[in-house]
Amino acid sequence: MGIGLTDDGKAGGMIIWHALLIFLTFAARKLMTERAEKSTQKIHNFNAGPSILPPKVIEESAAAIKDFNNSGLSLLEFGHRTPEFTSVMEEASALVKELMQLDNDHEVLFLHGGASTQFMQVPMNLLDDKETAAYADTGVWAAKAINEAKFFGNVDIACSSKEKGYTFIPKDFAVPNDARYFHITTNNTIYGTQWQSIPRTSNPLVADMSSDIFSRTLDFNSFGLIYAGAQKNMGAAGVNLVVVNNKMLGKLKRKLPTIMDYRNHIREKSMLNTPPVFAVYVSLLTLRWIKSEGGIVEMEKRNKEKAALLYQEIDENPLFSGTVLKEDRSKTNVCFMMKDADLVTSFLAYTNSLGITGIKGHRSVGGFRASLYNALPLESVEFLISAMQKFKTDFT
Amino acid sequence: MGIGLTDDGKAGGMIIWHALLIFLTFAARKLMTERAEKSTQKIHNFNAGPSILPPKVIEESAAAIKDFNNSGLSLLEFGHRTPEFTSVMEEASALVKELMQLDNDHEVLFLHGGASTQFMQVPMNLLDDKETAAYADTGVWAAKAINEAKFFGNVDIACSSKEKGYTFIPKDFAVPNDARYFHITTNNTIYGTQWQSIPRTSNPLVADMSSDIFSRTLDFNSFGLIYAGAQKNMGAAGVNLVVVNNKMLGKLKRKLPTIMDYRNHIREKSMLNTPPVFAVYVSLLTLRWIKSEGGIVEMEKRNKEKAALLYQEIDENPLFSGTVLKEDRSKTNVCFMMKDADLVTSFLAYTNSLGITGIKGHRSVGGFRASLYNALPLESVEFLISAMQKFKTDFT
Repeated sequence: MGIGLTDDGKAGGMIIWHALLIFLTFAARKLMTERAEKSTQKIHNFNAGPSILPPKVIEESAAAIKDFNNSGLSLLEFGHRTPEFTSVMEEASALVKELMQLDNDHEVLFLHGGASTQFMQVPMNLLDDKETAAYADTGVWAAKAINEAKFFGNVDIACSSKEKGYTFIPKDFAVPNDARYFHITTNNTIYGTQWQSIPRTSNPLVADMSSDIFSRTLDFNSFGLIYAGAQKNMGAAGVNLVVVNNKMLGKLKRKLPTIMDYRNHIREKSMLNTPPVFAVYVSLLTLRWIKSEGGIVEMEKRNKEKAALLYQEIDENPLFSGTVLKEDRSKTNVCFMMKDADLVTSFLAYTNSLGITGIKGHRSVGGFRASLYNALPLESVEFLISAMQKFKTDFT
Repeated sequence: MGIGLTDDGKAGGMIIWHALLIFLTFAARKLMTERAEKSTQKIHNFNAGPSILPPKVIEESAAAIKDFNNSGLSLLEFGHRTPEFTSVMEEASALVKELMQLDNDHEVLFLHGGASTQFMQVPMNLLDDKETAAYADTGVWAAKAINEAKFFGNVDIACSSKEKGYTFIPKDFAVPNDARYFHITTNNTIYGTQWQSIPRTSNPLVADMSSDIFSRTLDFNSFGLIYAGAQKNMGAAGVNLVVVNNKMLGKLKRKLPTIMDYRNHIREKSMLNTPPVFAVYVSLLTLRWIKSEGGIVEMEKRNKEKAALLYQEIDENPLFSGTVLKEDRSKTNVCFMMKDADLVTSFLAYTNSLGITGIKGHRSVGGFRASLYNALPLESVEFLISAMQKFKTDFT
């Protein structure tokens, strides 16, 4: 194998070598031109979820699909009970524990499904038929969680911002003492509000953190249960993170189907059935990336900076306005409107032409939404801001 | 960009070119040697699931992770409500309908989870508290399905091969007329038995086809409900295929949590919540591959040939023996034993040294199991057979 070399100085050989060299040169040129054309326009990805992931995670995910751990097999062809995959699951769980600084009462689970599955699974595991759970109604997802809880027990709406279009986070409210738990949605992806501090109640706290998990420092041990669909800050769609204080479990009269009972998944270390292998692996890669970048502290610092810059532009640029109470603004999903509704379409077309994607607001609210997940670089926020400024100058 | 060429004939330039050429030659040699070393040993993948996928599916999956549809974005970063992903879901559903030749009463769903989720979701949707469902108890997975059905209603075990170690498929049995449905596991992955023909009863038929879906021709319209975890013949772990006759639905008194009700998923075309985007895409690629190779008819033909060859060797080679009743042998999972148990370890070590992987039997039964899913080439079966023959000659 390989290309052989003839003796030096022979004219015939030289001609062949020259021909080869010319071919190689043109091949290299063609490759470089194609790459250059492809990379002309960088995409700035503000998708709300599934959303931007670190380039390293994408590279490594693709590599594992071709060949996992130099096994000669794709990760997709790998048995989940092999030592290789078991160690993926173990490392992913250990990294969650480390990054969130969890104590020994808190168990980490990777489960099939997304937050919508947990809307059902949480009350199924924690709320008996005649008991009451308290919920904060702060948006579409909170309302869905409330709806599912009603299948399993009584629901007390401890507070709601529904009547004002979910534009703020309720402050003064009381949670009934006998409520089995109090459920909040830490960040409201659709409306762009976020609990800036976590309410302290005597009831165990249950939180849907799908859109701000690993984006901010919190005392995670103060929660009874945390759940999050992975497809925003933790990886790809198709897996759910559940962190549960094991003291919350096993207190029901209800009999639980095997696959729904958190205790079975704890006992089997998230391997009760075939896990969503690839989605768990992407989570592992993302968790490794978060750690290598400086952990949740560093993520929070970057997210604060990105959000502050973008909100500043929204407040200063006369074309735009924020949509929610300033003190409750989300650092994850920045929602804003155009004061002149007639300009919405042309601003979307303009930003789209620049390679800015995913800033159209959720179909239920309209306007714009820029999602600033961990993997979104500051550069993309600055690029969006410059587009907002240029639009003001050039198009109005 | 690119490498420039100097004028021909200049001695100094020639030396530089020669140096460059020597460098390029050595670089090419190194690359080729590395590749050669890597590809010296082909892996023959007999994993029971997750399991072998067509090389084309793996290539295209990896490519989509790097750049989906020339969008400049990874498939993992793509919103599921975009036209690009919606068309993935639509094409995947349409291909299932086409390949299985489904009528208009049969709906196709891609849901989170695996067959273990369906063990619960099927009776939750089809069986009321005081009704009875009949089940065939033909293996570990059937027994698990039975266990979950008991949470929702009465279970009649219409037939069982449990007492004989699940080594056959029951033939003479009666299904109670009032049974809401009759549930079978078409192929028993662990024991290597398979229903060669589908029993005809007056009750609607429900089938777990996780391990033989798309591997054999059947009258799929004669089933009330079919479900299958994708990670064997249909793609990667993390998604479930459900084919349901919509006339079976909506007949319960039980109120169903939103995410559990098949009717909601039908209405939303498998997009009730964020679907497992990547796993659905791998299914689409696999379905395209099945169609391009000639559909289920061609898959069945290949699988019959592979299974016949391997069983012939098991029956003829004095070292080995089959484990189940011949007439009930699975064409998907071929289980066999070594007559001399002392040779098991050395045969496993020998085949492993040849690049044969995944033939160790399930932990609950021991022995060997070679899974011959659609994507496993005939060549791998022939290779295993030659290893069995060589082992007989060389090591005994």
